Order: sequence, then C-alpha cells, then structure tokens
Amino acid sequence: MSKKPLNVGMIGYGFMGRAHSNAYHVVSQFFDREYQPVLKAACARNKEKAEAFAAQWGYESVETDWRALIDRDDIHLVDICTPNNTHMEIALAAAKAGKAILCEKPLALNVEQAEIMTKAIEEAGVPNLVSFNYRRVPAVTMAKQLIDEGRLGKVFHYRSQFLQDWTISTDVPQGGAATWRLDVNAAGSGVTGDLLAHCIDSAMWHNGVITQVNAITETFVKERMHAESGKMEPVGIDDACIFHCRFENGSLGNFESTRYARGHKALYTWEINGENASIAWDLHDLHRLSYFDHGDEGKLRGWRSIHVSDHGGEQPYMDHWWVPGLAIGYAESFVHQLADFLDDMAKGVKSQPDFRNALQTQYVCDAVIQSAKSGQWVDVKKA
Amino acid sequence: MSKKPLNVGMIGYGFMGRAHSNAYHVVSQFFDREYQPVLKAACARNKEKAEAFAAQWGYESVETDWRALIDRDDIHLVDICTPNNTHMEIALAAAKAGKAILCEKPLALNVEQAEIMTKAIEEAGVPNLVSFNYRRVPAVTMAKQLIDEGRLGKVFHYRSQFLQDWTISTDVPQGGAATWRLDVNAAGSGVTGDLLAHCIDSAMWHNGVITQVNAITETFVKERMHAESGKMEPVGIDDACIFHCRFENGSLGNFESTRYARGHKALYTWEINGENASIAWDLHDLHRLSYFDHGDEGKLRGWRSIHVSDHGGEQPYMDHWWVPGLAIGYAESFVHQLADFLDDMAKGVKSQPDFRNALQTQYVCDAVIQSAKSGQWVDVKKA
Amino acid sequence: MSKKPLNVGMIGYGFMGRAHSNAYHVVSQFFDREYQPVLKAACARNKEKAEAFAAQWGYESVETDWRALIDRDDIHLVDICTPNNTHMEIALAAAKAGKAILCEKPLALNVEQAEIMTKAIEEAGVPNLVSFNYRRVPAVTMAKQLIDEGRLGKVFHYRSQFLQDWTISTDVPQGGAATWRLDVNAAGSGVTGDLLAHCIDSAMWHNGVITQVNAITETFVKERMHAESGKMEPVGIDDACIFHCRFENGSLGNFESTRYARGHKALYTWEINGENASIAWDLHDLHRLSYFDHGDEGKLRGWRSIHVSDHGGEQPYMDHWWVPGLAIGYAESFVHQLADFLDDMAKGVKSQPDFRNALQTQYVCDAVIQSAKSGQWVDVKKA
Amino acid sequence: MSKKPLNVGMIGYGFMGRAHSNAYHVVSQFFDREYQPVLKAACARNKEKAEAFAAQWGYESVETDWRALIDRDDIHLVDICTPNNTHMEIALAAAKAGKAILCEKPLALNVEQAEIMTKAIEEAGVPNLVSFNYRRVPAVTMAKQLIDEGRLGKVFHYRSQFLQDWTISTDVPQGGAATWRLDVNAAGSGVTGDLLAHCIDSAMWHNGVITQVNAITETFVKERMHAESGKMEPVGIDDACIFHCRFENGSLGNFESTRYARGHKALYTWEINGENASIAWDLHDLHRLSYFDHGDEGKLRGWRSIHVSDHGGEQPYMDHWWVPGLAIGYAESFVHQLADFLDDMAKGVKSQPDFRNALQTQYVCDAVIQSAKSGQWVDVKKA
Repeated sequence: MSKKPLNVGMIGYGFMGRAHSNAYHVVSQFFDREYQPVLKAACARNKEKAEAFAAQWGYESVETDWRALIDRDDIHLVDICTPNNTHMEIALAAAKAGKAILCEKPLALNVEQAEIMTKAIEEAGVPNLVSFNYRRVPAVTMAKQLIDEGRLGKVFHYRSQFLQDWTISTDVPQGGAATWRLDVNAAGSGVTGDLLAHCIDSAMWHNGVITQVNAITETFVKERMHAESGKMEPVGIDDACIFHCRFENGSLGNFESTRYARGHKALYTWEINGENASIAWDLHDLHRLSYFDHGDEGKLRGWRSIHVSDHGGEQPYMDHWWVPGLAIGYAESFVHQLADFLDDMAKGVKSQPDFRNALQTQYVCDAVIQSAKSGQWVDVKKA
Repeated sequence: MSKKPLNVGMIGYGFMGRAHSNAYHVVSQFFDREYQPVLKAACARNKEKAEAFAAQWGYESVETDWRALIDRDDIHLVDICTPNNTHMEIALAAAKAGKAILCEKPLALNVEQAEIMTKAIEEAGVPNLVSFNYRRVPAVTMAKQLIDEGRLGKVFHYRSQFLQDWTISTDVPQGGAATWRLDVNAAGSGVTGDLLAHCIDSAMWHNGVITQVNAITETFVKERMHAESGKMEPVGIDDACIFHCRFENGSLGNFESTRYARGHKALYTWEINGENASIAWDLHDLHRLSYFDHGDEGKLRGWRSIHVSDHGGEQPYMDHWWVPGLAIGYAESFVHQLADFLDDMAKGVKSQPDFRNALQTQYVCDAVIQSAKSGQWVDVKKA
Repeated sequence: MSKKPLNVGMIGYGFMGRAHSNAYHVVSQFFDREYQPVLKAACARNKEKAEAFAAQWGYESVETDWRALIDRDDIHLVDICTPNNTHMEIALAAAKAGKAILCEKPLALNVEQAEIMTKAIEEAGVPNLVSFNYRRVPAVTMAKQLIDEGRLGKVFHYRSQFLQDWTISTDVPQGGAATWRLDVNAAGSGVTGDLLAHCIDSAMWHNGVITQVNAITETFVKERMHAESGKMEPVGIDDACIFHCRFENGSLGNFESTRYARGHKALYTWEINGENASIAWDLHDLHRLSYFDHGDEGKLRGWRSIHVSDHGGEQPYMDHWWVPGLAIGYAESFVHQLADFLDDMAKGVKSQPDFRNALQTQYVCDAVIQSAKSGQWVDVKKA
Repeated sequence: MSKKPLNVGMIGYGFMGRAHSNAYHVVSQFFDREYQPVLKAACARNKEKAEAFAAQWGYESVETDWRALIDRDDIHLVDICTPNNTHMEIALAAAKAGKAILCEKPLALNVEQAEIMTKAIEEAGVPNLVSFNYRRVPAVTMAKQLIDEGRLGKVFHYRSQFLQDWTISTDVPQGGAATWRLDVNAAGSGVTGDLLAHCIDSAMWHNGVITQVNAITETFVKERMHAESGKMEPVGIDDACIFHCRFENGSLGNFESTRYARGHKALYTWEINGENASIAWDLHDLHRLSYFDHGDEGKLRGWRSIHVSDHGGEQPYMDHWWVPGLAIGYAESFVHQLADFLDDMAKGVKSQPDFRNALQTQYVCDAVIQSAKSGQWVDVKKA
C-alpha cells in the first residue's frame, strides 16, 4: 500500500472511545482513502485501563497524561473522547500543537468555552471535525441530498425527539466513568447537550439556522448518589427538555428529549414537512428512510419506507458495504464520518461539522437552557 | 323519496346475518341507489330468536320456515346466511320462486352442490351474488383497478394467507349455532371453505384462474365434543391447509390457512408481485394498501403505505364516507357489496362474484381437499 | 320494543351532522339501551338542504329556524353541529327550554362564551355532553382504564400531535359551508380549537389538569379568498400551533398541531410515559393500541401492538361489534359516545365530558392562544 | 496479548470472502477469545485480484492455487468462500491436511458430494463449521433460546420465505464471478441452495427435522447470456421455489423463495406458531424480534416488537457491542459466528452447524428439487 499513515492519539476509552477506535480499525477495509489511520497511542489517566484499551484495539502505545500525548511528534490526529468538561483544555493544546482534531460532541460545557475553542482552532488552521455522527447515517445523509435538490419546496415544520429511559431508577448514580453524563460539572447539561445537541445539529444541517427558542426543562430526580463522593448530591442536569423555535426560513421547530420515556432506548427521530414532500427518520431503524412525495399520483400517495441498502451507488455510502437488503448498524456512522474526514484532509478542504458549526449548535443549546431558566423567548446568537 | 323498495327476506341470524342486516340498514344513508332495501322478514327455526333478531334490526315480520319466507310474494331478495349445508336447498327454492339471491360463501358444501345451484340460478335468470365481501374493501378494490390498468406487467407470484388462532383450545366444541364451522357435516370443510375460499376468490379476481394445485391439510385436534350430541366425536374438518398452485398466466401461488397460528385473529393477507410493481394488503389494517412501484426513482424506491381514505373520489367507495385520514372498518365492506348489488339490479347487469364465479372458487377448494387426500397434483376444473 | 323514544332535533348538516346522524341511526342495532333515538327533526337555514339531509338520514321533519326547533315540545335532545360561532346562542336557548344537549366541540368561540354556557346549562340541570368523540375509540378508552388501574406509576411525559395537510394550497378559501374552519369569525381559532382541543381533552382525561402553557402559533398563508365575500381577506386563524406545558401531576406536556404537515391526513397521536409503562395511539390506525410494560421479563420487553377487536368483552365496546381481528372505524366512536350518553340519561347520571369539562379544555385553548400572542407562560384557569 | 494465533487461509474473494475477512479483522476487538485470527494468506486464481484483496484486508501473503495454500504448514484454518462447485475438492484436501474448516453454504452441489465431505471431515476429526450465519443474528439466536426454554408449547406451524428481485431483468447474465449463482454448473441449484438453504437451516434448528416435502419450482427466464461463453444458454437453475412439508414434531411447514418478488431485496422472514407463543423475524429489520405471548393478560395481548440491543447481557451477543437502542447490522452475524467457532475450538467442543448438520439441510434441498421434478411427495433422508 502506498497510503499515507495518519497517526492517531486517542484520549478517552469509554463508549465513544470504542466507537471511534472501531472506525479507525476498519475504515480502510471499506473506503479507499489516501490516508491510512494508524492507532499510535491511547491515553487514559489510569495506566491499567489505558493498557487494556490499547491491547483490545491495537494501539501501539499508551499515555496517562494527555499533554504528553499531544507533545509527541508522531501523533497527527488527536481524538477527544473524554467527558465534556475536558474538551476545551485538550482541544486548545492540540490546536496549539498543530494536530488535526476530532472532538466528540457537545463541543464544550458552554458557549464561552466553545467560542474560545473555535477561535483557537481557526487561528491554528488545523483540520477539525466534531463528531455529530448521525449526519453520516446513510438515510440521514440522503435526506440532506433530497433537501438540497429542492424536493421539499417551502418548509413549514421540523420536529425531532430523542427519548431514552435509562435514568428512571433513582438508583442510577451521577458522576464517575459510567455515569458522568448525569453530573452537571462533567457534562455541562443533561439531555440538552447529550441528546438534543444531535437533534439540533441535524435540524440546522437540514433546515438552516434556528433563530429563537422557548424551552422548558425538568429534573425529575432531585438527588442522586455521586459515584466519586459516595454521597447523595443535588442533580444539576436537565432530565428532560422540550423547546419550540423558529428557523430562519420561517418554519417552526418542535424538539423534545428525555431520559424518562419508558420503553424507548434511543428513539431519536426527526421529520421535516415541506410544501411538496416530507421526510422522516428513526434511529431505532436507522437503515430506513420515510418519504412522502406529494408529486405522486393522487390515489397512490403514501409514505414510502425506503430500505437504504444500496441501489447501484445512488444511496450515500452504501456501495461500500454489502448487497441490497442487508443493513448496516450504528457503528458504520463513525466509519463514514472518518472516511469523509480522511478524504477532506487529503484534499485540503474543510470538514463539516467543524468547530464553528458546532459552536452554532452550542448557541442553541445555551439559549435553550437560558430560556428554560427565564421562561422567556431567547434569541440565538449566530456563529 | 322516490326510491323503489327492495324487500329483503333474511334467513339466518348469526354473525353474517348481523353483518348483512347492518348493510341493509345503512346503505341508503351513504349510497344513493334506485333501490331502497326494506327489512321485510327475518327467518330462523327458533321463533324467539327470530323475533329478537327482527326486533334488533327492524325486520317487519318473522318466519320460522324458510320455505314460507320464500313463498311470500312480498319478498324480492332472499339473503342466505345459514350454515353451508343448507345453502343449496334454499338457493334452489329461491331461484325457482324468482327471487334475487344474496348467498354467503362458500357457495356450497362441495362442487356437486355448487354445480346444481349454478345451473338452476342461471336457468332462473335471477340476480345473484355470493358474499365474498373482501373484494369491496376499498384497498382491495383499488388493487384490482391497478392490476386492470396494467401497472404490474407480467405477474410472477401471488401469495395469500388467512391465519387465526381461535380453535387451539381442545375445549372448543364442534357443531351447534356458534361452532358449526368445526363440524364437517355443517361446513363441508374447515379452513379451506371458510377462510381459503376468501383468499382464492381474491386471488382469481386479481390474477386469473388457478389451474393446478398441490395441498396438505392437517387436523390437529382429532376429537371434539359435539354441541348437539354432547359426545366426543371425530373432527372431520381441516384445521390447517397449505397449497401451492399454478395460475393460467404462468405465475405461482402459495396459500396457507389455519386456526392454530397463535397471535393472529384474522390475519388475512395477500401479495402480488409483478415485473413492474407489487401490491400487498392485510385485513388487520384493512384501510391501508402497500404498493411498490419499480418505476419510482431508484434511490427513492420503497413500499408505500397508502391510507385509503379518500382523495377526491379517486379511491373506490371512500367519497361516500368521512374525510381523509378517517378509517372505515370491516362492516363497510358489506355496505359496498350491497350498494354494488343494488346498482347492478337497477341497471339490469350481472353482479360479480355470481354463482358461476363462486363455483370456480369451489372447484379450487375441492381440488385442494382432493390433493391433500391423494398427495398428488390435481387439475382444477373450469367453470 | 319497550324502549323509550328520545326525539332528536339536529341543527347542522355538515360533516358532524352526518357523523351524529349515523350514530342515532345505528346505535340501537348494536347497543341495548333504554332510550331509542328517534330522528324527529333536522334544521338548516336553507330549506332544500334541510330536506335533502332529512331525506337521506330519515328525519321526520325539517326546520329552517333553530329557534323553532327548540320551541317544539316533541324534541327531547338538541344536537348542535353548527359552526362554533353559533354554539352559545343555541345552547343557551336549548338549556332554557329544558332540552338535553349534545354539542360539537370546541364548546365555544372563547372562554367568555364557554363560561356563560356552562353556567346556564348547570342552572338548567339538563343532560349535556360535548362531542370529544375520540374518548370513545376503544383503544383510547382502554388506555384510560389502564391509567386508572394504576399501571403507569408516576407519569413523566405526555405528548400529542394532530397533523393534517389540507390547507397547504393557497387556493383553499376561507368561510362558507365547507371551509368555515379557516374563518376566524366562524371558528374562533384555527388548529387550536379544531384539532388541539381533541388532544387537550384526551390529555386531561388521561393525565389530569394542565396548569401552565407556553405556545407558538403561525399563520403560513396570510390572505385567502373569503367564500362569502368573494374577496381576498386576511386570515385570522392559527395554521399551526405548538405548545409545551406542565400538568398538575408534575409531568411535562408537548403538543403540536398543523394543517401544513405534508403527508398526514389526520395524524392524531398521543403517548404517555409512566415509570412502569407507556401507552401510545394513532388515529390513522385507531383500532390498535401500543403498550410497553416495564414489568415484562427484561429480554422480552417490547412495544406491544394490541389489535383492539374484542377479547371476550375485556376490551371496551368491542363485544358489541364483530369477531376478533375485524376492525371498526371512525364512525363507531360516535356510536359509543351516544350509547354512553343514552345510558347516562337512563340512569340519571352526568355524562362526561360535559360543558364544565369542555370549559376546562377551553381554558387551555385560550391560554395557548394568549401565550402565543404574548410570548409568555400563561397560567390556566381552573373550571 | 497472550492470545494463541490462528492462521487463516482464505480461498475466494467475493461477497462472502469480504464478509468473512471482516469478521477475522474485528472479532478480537469485541470478543475476548483465546484464539486470535491472523490473516495469513488469501487465495485466488487471478494473482492481481488476490493481491488487491490481500492488501485491502491485510492478508500477509497470497496464493493462486488453493492446493498450495492447504499445503502450507502455517495455515491453521481454511476458509472456503468459493462457488459451490469447488467446495468438495477443497474441503476434502483441507480435511486430509488436518486443517480446521469454515465452509460457506450450501455445503455442496448435491447430496452425493455432501455425504462424501461429511464422511471425510468426520474421519479427519478436524474442527468444522458451515456458514449459516443467520443463526448468529441476536434476534434469531434469542428465538432459539425461547424455544429451548419451552415457551412455545406444542408447535403447529413454521413458515419462512426469502424473497429477492434482482434477476427480473433478462439482461442479467449467468456464470462468471458476479453471477455464478445463476449458472447451474457452478451453483448446483438456484434459490433452493442459495436462499432456501438458509430458511431450512434455521427452521430445523428451531423446530427439528423436516421429514417430507412437496415442492414446485419455476424458471421464469429460460435463457440468459453466459458471462464466460458470451452466448445465450439455457438457464438450469430454479428462479423460484415453493414447498410445504412436515416436521418430525407434527407441525406443518411452508417455504417460499424467489428472485422475482419486485420490491424485496432480501426479505428473509420466518415465523413459528406454538400453542402458547409465536415468534417472527425479518432480515430487513434484523435487530427486531416479534413475539406474541398468549400468557399475557387477555386484553393486553399483542405482538411485541423487541429491539434486540442489549438488556444487561440477557440478549445474546449484544453486551459486546454498544448501548441499548443502537442497532448492529448484517456483518455482525459473521463476527458472532466466528467468535463462537473460536470459542468452540479453544474448548475442544464441536461447533454447530457442522458438516453433518449441513448435510441434513442438503438432504432437504435435494428432496425439494426432486419433488419439484416428480410432482410427488419425497421423504427426506436423515443424516
């Protein structure tokens, strides 16, 4: 192979660390790219965990201090898969060191951090991508194409939800490696940054900028044991969040997320209603796209359930996988994201969504939190 | 109203007696026909039951002997909703008396009876219709239109099933008013005449004549208490029946019916696969039609779920009911059947499916039973 | 029959006039009630239309002035199926005349009217029911039973939507017999009173009182031809409305309605998420209830699709219809509503939802409209 | 790592070669096994293709003669992913050489070959597995567990179908690398060996041995261009096949497969109906299992749609992947198959389905073909 090695330094070893590592491990088997990711180093504060993770995924070395990792000349790309409260510090250092950066979402704890990070990364001029992986689910990508092709006409509505049920039990702790998402200090917010950030990213990608929001949040369980302190502590995150909004194009948005919707594991859905067509999608069956075309003959109009599994290369990404009818899963969204990032780097073009784009999502998330606190409509700042 | 009265004499008071009576009761409210059905007389051997039924449905009089009913000059239409073993005798008498006849399916106990009945009714020249009501579910009717419009191209496959689970318990008796369908003497056959007859009727309406069949049947519960004798008696009906077949147009058929499919109450489905399009339907959600059009743009091909609930009169029957999105149910199929029958009578044209058409279905049912016994392919006679 | 006649005076002859008339026409065939509705008189300003309607549905007489109808001694029940702006005047007169009243929803143009009407009817002490017919869809009724049985535990979320697409075309006029729902003078509001009123009624029936709301509305088409004036006039109704809210029990609500959701004819859905179970429903397939029971064995948990079509009388209303697996449709919800109303009248108990209950829904609708105007949270008054 | 290397020699580089290679590439990242597959050598007659394939998947070396590959001492496992007509020769040589063998299905061109292969492999005593990968889809595996736990009671019915539509066009050639499945000399049969073999394997795994079959086959396109000869040649395979059968446990089977079902890419479904419960599955949404439990409370009975995506390790394989709600795809079935095979080899236990088990499926396939030719019921030989 005459591929150019791209040496990866991975920081973090949790759920996202695994999902990203898998992408590095398999991308070249399915996508022919100029760059070949090399799993150079994995970093975690706990040496044993770092070594176990490295062994499992084939990283050549380990670090226990992310600064050391960034200092290494043999690292080309820094992948940030740590809790949200560490994103800024790592990203700033990596940018300063001239590394390419792949950062998990949400970009930061809040807008202030996100602005600093965006400024720094743009000044550094390094390749950067924020991991809103769902954009790269083929059905979601194809929806974007359909929208860009002008098939919807004027858009009236966008609605999206991300419903889970894993924190209903009061026995679930906050903080620690497994449940830092419930600790406001580590996560910044609850469902807003964790789940709605995905909804918002897809929404603005599909339908343009959100200009005003009005939100309500609720914390159903007020106190939880903290995994680190071992003590009951107040819960600072939003367990649930609902907001409606206006998009710049005149359409209305309706968003809802919760971890208290019994029966839903990861029901991430969105739907867009245009004058001429509507499109809908559901993460639970991510290989299908629902499409309604008002241009179809009257008596035969109906929602089409499109099994997005290759039609001679017309459906995005799918000609790289198996044969028609055979589904891919969640993991492949990260492979596509990486394949695109590698391609962009080789071609020297900017990737999307970059830090600035993620900053825009952060503006919406912050406006949502702020509106929920004030009970007022909040204008969204523009990145 | 200047409508012409059509005096109905109903024989039978069971499930079908109710479904037909409802159709007579409401048809003029939804369909403007020259004939106005008048519920003139209801007939049952048991006088109390006849009177209760007449009171509930508004029949003006009762009879306890169907011969007396047929003898009445004020009866124009005889509706036969009795068990299968009485159809022939009643139909022959009604034909002889020059009455119009609406007969429940299956037409008869067997081919011999059906042939006699068909001959008699054609000689009498009376209006006649056999109640294969599912043809008049709007989605099923629309499928027929699509096929007739040539949208499918060459047909390769037709498959249909009718699955129920109500006789799994060995405590269900055979015979008597409620369970005569399990008594071979009253019913002639089991699922073949009761359920597959519907599948076969729709299949041949949609896809032409079946020429050869190969079947297997099974009786899972060998003995059941007889409701009349109070004794355990051998079960003579087929509890389940599967057959494959050839249609005259070269396509293959696959049919299955059972009353032992746990979880299915009345899962009557059919699907037809043509070169250019496929269509499918399911009685459990009878207001929807599934349609796949290979002519759709490649990447956007998918099965459409068409909610058949009016589109400016383009979907059959639906402009007579409510507004788009609001479903009709099972009962309306009988209303449509009646509306069509009334229309045909007013215009003096033959209705479908008539006795001859039902005879053809009987030929297939008999060939199926015969094949199951012999283990051989059986050619289907042509009506 | 020893049934007591209940003479009905119907005012209005549109979509709802038909749906109610059908219920009067068939209720006794399926439900054994002490009262037998008699279609005594139909009233419409236009004599020809009144007569045609009376002929079609079997009303014995016609009136062209609703006051004359109410004055008649032989009318026991006044059924108000006219546009919203006439409800108050008719209801007040009917109450004064001591008639039982069945009134279409929404109760009134606004809260002021609704309060006057409620006061009057309660002082008159006449039987009264507001036609939120969807409560009587068996699946919806069964959901209420499950909730009352305590199966959900603490409720966290309620969400509901009512999406249509019939007014997207700018050619649709406002005002007149067919499109008065787009004329704010006749309708009072747009989707809020027409569609969300249903959502709100079901929501409060299932989940208790809504205490605070925050809403957004939009009118996408600003001007439409008025069917009466023949001139382009500003559109005063809300084309779309989204609101979130708090229920008294601590749960959050999310509601959305529009007539601009391409592909949806009458997608009325609701879902309730409790600690132990969740329930969901969809009008497009109204015979099914979705149910998730967290008490099910872990690996086998899943949403159940319950075909609500009789299980030995355990499912509400269904033992009055056909056999398991055979669906009923939209029309039957009005039959059930009437059967219950007749039963209540015979027993001398109050029906639900009565005027007071509908007043509570009106309070929510008005708070929604008010919030959309002010951009502020609005507390809901309590009836 | 202290893992034991298992050196793989892959023969073939097509669709299955890719699917197997991917499994070797990723299995250790998700499953902790004693053996670590090492991609030692890839073999194809065409050297360029072999080298390209090896480069893409990371094979250390290439061979152009499979005999040379088998002769190598550093190969521990021979993986046979070639067209069906070469399976026997390769398997016999590999067995003789004492290699472990993973062989694609169907095992052989016919029963005669399969018997020879089974005898040889059992005499050689080498680990062997036939790649009926769908057994390792978690939903399918869980179904097997439910059946083994006795949840179904007496089984009445098993039905399965595998419907595709990719050969409807008469322009599709037969023979050659891409379309050898249409050439009877390379494939042995058409849909029977290619698709029904999967259905039959799952069926007998779930429901025991099939004892008698009655089949019909059809070849819709009689002549196709041969990719090697460049000439129109008669088509020798079955384009479609339907059969019904009896299982040893007294239940009835109904099977259908075709490549002429417009709209279906790979609609592989099965359903089993027992006295107490029914289970169904569909490859198009392979992460879901449908389950009906008659033991559920009467009014709440319904088919559950179980999203098989981990519940604390209770659902097979899923605790090795992501988090609840996130689906895996087709490729993972091969990873599971390999993980199990590695585990079995480490523990020295026999894997399933082995050659003998696949021989039993071959007996059914041959009986099906034979019955289709003779029109007679055919008894299935027992392996």
